[in-house]
Amino acid sequence: MTERPQDVIFVGNKPPMSYVLAIITAFSSGTAKETTLKARGQAITTAVDVAEITRNRFIKDLKVTKIAIGTAEMPPREGETRSRMVSTIEITLTKE
Amino acid sequence: MTERPQDVIFVGNKPPMSYVLAIITAFSSGTAKETTLKARGQAITTAVDVAEITRNRFIKDLKVTKIAIGTAEMPPREGETRSRMVSTIEITLTKE
Repeated sequence: MTERPQDVIFVGNKPPMSYVLAIITAFSSGTAKETTLKARGQAITTAVDVAEITRNRFIKDLKVTKIAIGTAEMPPREGETRSRMVSTIEITLTKE
Repeated sequence: MTERPQDVIFVGNKPPMSYVLAIITAFSSGTAKETTLKARGQAITTAVDVAEITRNRFIKDLKVTKIAIGTAEMPPREGETRSRMVSTIEITLTKE
């Protein structure tokens, strides 16, 4: 098994609890001390929900150690010519 | 006119550009050096969009100096008995 001191979880449009479970699994494997949630567009709200639910209900000693926002360029949709800009968020959770 | 060294803008479900305009107005009045965007629920994504659009397109020397996430309790909807928990975000923008 390889060491993964920092896991990254991409938050999309599944229900928040599936990502909460992914975080709990990452931390209970014993190797992870830090997990970063990455999301863009409407999934940004889900990422914040996931961080809050995990912290308030499941892993009480989890701290939000970093939050960064940014912008990413997405390829144009079919039939469109211009690429779209979407907002992004990264939330880093660290276990004491 | 009273001094408002720190303005707070509540982001809801209007189009992002109305909040971008509010930030531009706050900074061009000359007194504001710092503005905080507050949002909850689905408006969290809008708040991130507003911060990114303002920073990338309008006020280039604007820095995101603080981002905090949290949880707020909302009163139950009509016909429901349990209060709901919603995620919140606060994004502080500072002009150099």
